Amino acid sequence: MQQYFVKGSAISPVTIEDKETSKHMFQVMRLKEEDEVTLVFDDGIKRLARVLDMENRQFELVQELNDNVELPVQVTIASGFPKGDKLEFIAQKVTELGASQIWAFPADWSVAKWDGKKLGKKVEKLEKIALGAAEQSKRNIVPSIKLFEKKADFLAQLDQFDSIIVAYEESAKEGEAAALLQAVTGLETGAKLLFIFGPEGGLSPAEIESFEAKGAVLAGLGPRILRAETAPLYALSALSVLVELEK
Amino acid sequence: MQQYFVKGSAISPVTIEDKETSKHMFQVMRLKEEDEVTLVFDDGIKRLARVLDMENRQFELVQELNDNVELPVQVTIASGFPKGDKLEFIAQKVTELGASQIWAFPADWSVAKWDGKKLGKKVEKLEKIALGAAEQSKRNIVPSIKLFEKKADFLAQLDQFDSIIVAYEESAKEGEAAALLQAVTGLETGAKLLFIFGPEGGLSPAEIESFEAKGAVLAGLGPRILRAETAPLYALSALSVLVELEK
Repeated sequence: MQQYFVKGSAISPVTIEDKETSKHMFQVMRLKEEDEVTLVFDDGIKRLARVLDMENRQFELVQELNDNVELPVQVTIASGFPKGDKLEFIAQKVTELGASQIWAFPADWSVAKWDGKKLGKKVEKLEKIALGAAEQSKRNIVPSIKLFEKKADFLAQLDQFDSIIVAYEESAKEGEAAALLQAVTGLETGAKLLFIFGPEGGLSPAEIESFEAKGAVLAGLGPRILRAETAPLYALSALSVLVELEK
Repeated sequence: MQQYFVKGSAISPVTIEDKETSKHMFQVMRLKEEDEVTLVFDDGIKRLARVLDMENRQFELVQELNDNVELPVQVTIASGFPKGDKLEFIAQKVTELGASQIWAFPADWSVAKWDGKKLGKKVEKLEKIALGAAEQSKRNIVPSIKLFEKKADFLAQLDQFDSIIVAYEESAKEGEAAALLQAVTGLETGAKLLFIFGPEGGLSPAEIESFEAKGAVLAGLGPRILRAETAPLYALSALSVLVELEK
């Protein structure tokens, strides 16, 4: 069933105010009265809803659905600004794979240089991508997007996490393959986990040091060298195996 | 260090016959005499090699490198023909993630209809993509590509595998989350594993039945709905966790 996110709290009947959402509902999907969709409000609960009044874009809420597909830990993905539109790719894929927050920061070796104006536009674009991907993958939440103009502002956020894992190619070579497992084992439900990834050129030694000073652990993601945009997908899939399939 | 695949067996000195490879070596990377690269021949062993003679594109082999990054099981990824250039995306990403063979077949619900001529061109393009990705991710082999014009020819290949896993969305809903773990547990080193994925519309009930008749197990890939091109990346990452990180 088609799923839509609606801002606000669940009230019945509800009027769809967002123009893009109502356009998709009534022009693209051509919903008619009595048709049913899933609506997800700010509380993250999926609800079966039925079209009451097409003209006024009104739905009545029929019942709550017992369908929570969120990872049991809250995962933030933070990437050094990658080239071109790779962040768009990352945003779509990590939304499908369960990320709660999608962040990016100007890493020492980022080739992309994005100023405030560019970042504002980028955030808007990424929010749309995350919304679309969250609807398609039937998420209970839409991941939030944050792009840091200054690395210091990103570093200042690190204290809020229960665990920080830095994807670091060299770790794989040094036999630290088990670091990912160790960092994930023992995370409690609801724990806040941050995964940090470098841009194409990787993270600088100074960056590694500043993350480690905040308690981050370095972890390899298997023995093969992954591109900057592939590493977050491996990390989230691995996390799903460890905290969803194996539990 | 830059890595190149060279067809044939390891002999020293070796002359690089492939034009694209020698162009990359001497025009793009501007290798000079005494410069070193990694060469990988048909035996999959990485060897340190040094430029002997630029004019004649000759290298001497210096030593074998003890660096095997291949998955301990041989994985074939088979996708129902997806739309547009998604197969190109899949080929690049599953090469990074360790696939041995990349196959695709005309699934009942494939929107893409590719005839023999189109398939020939597609294979050539995918082979180039796999080669580039295998060099970048420092693989020991280049995954082979096979596109089946007829589904029957694909089905006829299934008997050669030790284990066949079908990624099936409905399995996740039915609580068969553990099927992936069960199918992978107990695979011996060198075992041949086939993962089958549907196109955008999924696999038809008749297809599911024909795969099950060949001994395939149905497995969910976590609770979220993954797009056709994302599911193979989850499957290979999960496999890496189970047979590389956890061993």
